[in-house]
Amino acid sequence: MKAHTEYLTFHTKKRRELVRLTPTLDAILAKSGIVDGFMLVSAMHITAAVFVNDDESGLHEDIWEWLEKLAPFKREYEHHRTGEDNGDAHLKSMLVHHEVTVPITEGRLDLGPWQQVFYAEFDGQRDKRLIVKALGI
Amino acid sequence: MKAHTEYLTFHTKKRRELVRLTPTLDAILAKSGIVDGFMLVSAMHITAAVFVNDDESGLHEDIWEWLEKLAPFKREYEHHRTGEDNGDAHLKSMLVHHEVTVPITEGRLDLGPWQQVFYAEFDGQRDKRLIVKALGI
Amino acid sequence: MKAHTEYLTFHTKKRRELVRLTPTLDAILAKSGIVDGFMLVSAMHITAAVFVNDDESGLHEDIWEWLEKLAPFKREYEHHRTGEDNGDAHLKSMLVHHEVTVPITEGRLDLGPWQQVFYAEFDGQRDKRLIVKALGI
Repeated sequence: MKAHTEYLTFHTKKRRELVRLTPTLDAILAKSGIVDGFMLVSAMHITAAVFVNDDESGLHEDIWEWLEKLAPFKREYEHHRTGEDNGDAHLKSMLVHHEVTVPITEGRLDLGPWQQVFYAEFDGQRDKRLIVKALGI
Repeated sequence: MKAHTEYLTFHTKKRRELVRLTPTLDAILAKSGIVDGFMLVSAMHITAAVFVNDDESGLHEDIWEWLEKLAPFKREYEHHRTGEDNGDAHLKSMLVHHEVTVPITEGRLDLGPWQQVFYAEFDGQRDKRLIVKALGI
Repeated sequence: MKAHTEYLTFHTKKRRELVRLTPTLDAILAKSGIVDGFMLVSAMHITAAVFVNDDESGLHEDIWEWLEKLAPFKREYEHHRTGEDNGDAHLKSMLVHHEVTVPITEGRLDLGPWQQVFYAEFDGQRDKRLIVKALGI
């Protein structure tokens, strides 16, 4: 049994941004030598998320509009008594979830034909970390 | 350490449907010979989901009504510029999440008394795949 | 490869409550002897959830208000035909998700600086169980 861990750092130009991770995850898996198991991809911050869906720009616009509707940016969060203004980013992170587990089969990420892994930044423009850990045979 | 992988294919009669997976997962676990570990159950499409909740028909009606309220079917998604009409199915998939990890203990799925694993189809009437991968001792 | 499993029981004083789990999980990990792998933290009931976010009281107020908006307590759920009154708790559980997988590195939970693991009770004042299973080297 093997375990392989890497940390990625993102510093997005915009406050909110999607970053496609799949090519980077493919490269990490190749280095790990793991052929069968799981890869955990997990944001280490509480104002970001990781999800699997389509790499289609129209859908990404829909996702942002939808997130803004369900967990809107606004001044009136109690969290803002701390001086922060990112209450919406915490709720968006809970809604989307901060992690995914991707299956590894025959040395490849075992994703469906349209599945891409994305990092979703909800409060960027500063360094944010993410952990990738593969575990298996 | 062992790994065991199977793929399930669903072709639902209706566009939206819930399929209870637990008996199928029990059978896959028995074949795997794994007695302690994790079972990942993950939709391979981006318009479906997997979740754990109650097998109660009234609740299932509530779930559908709730999903329709939070991620409604409508014409006006940007994703529909591609010719698709399933923007809602992508958002429903993100809301419910496309995967669960079920613990395996003493050769059984270690679920609580009311926990059942469901496949949630949001854009069916065609072949859709799901991966089941058990990893453990 | 090792696996280590423990069960926690919660009996909250209030119907809805958040319980910070991280110190308990640290202690379980120390007992397990696992230094590299995954820890699955999964509610065994369908009216509770597990999530990772900030231990900040203002944010927790925001989370409760947000959950009540997206999955409100109300009389009119179909699930209530069974005699239950906790339809909202099932939907809140689906929204927040009932489980997280936490990475283990060098014998410690590999969480970011602000990440804390929480048990979210949506229908308490009775015994509810949660499983913690660590798997790794």
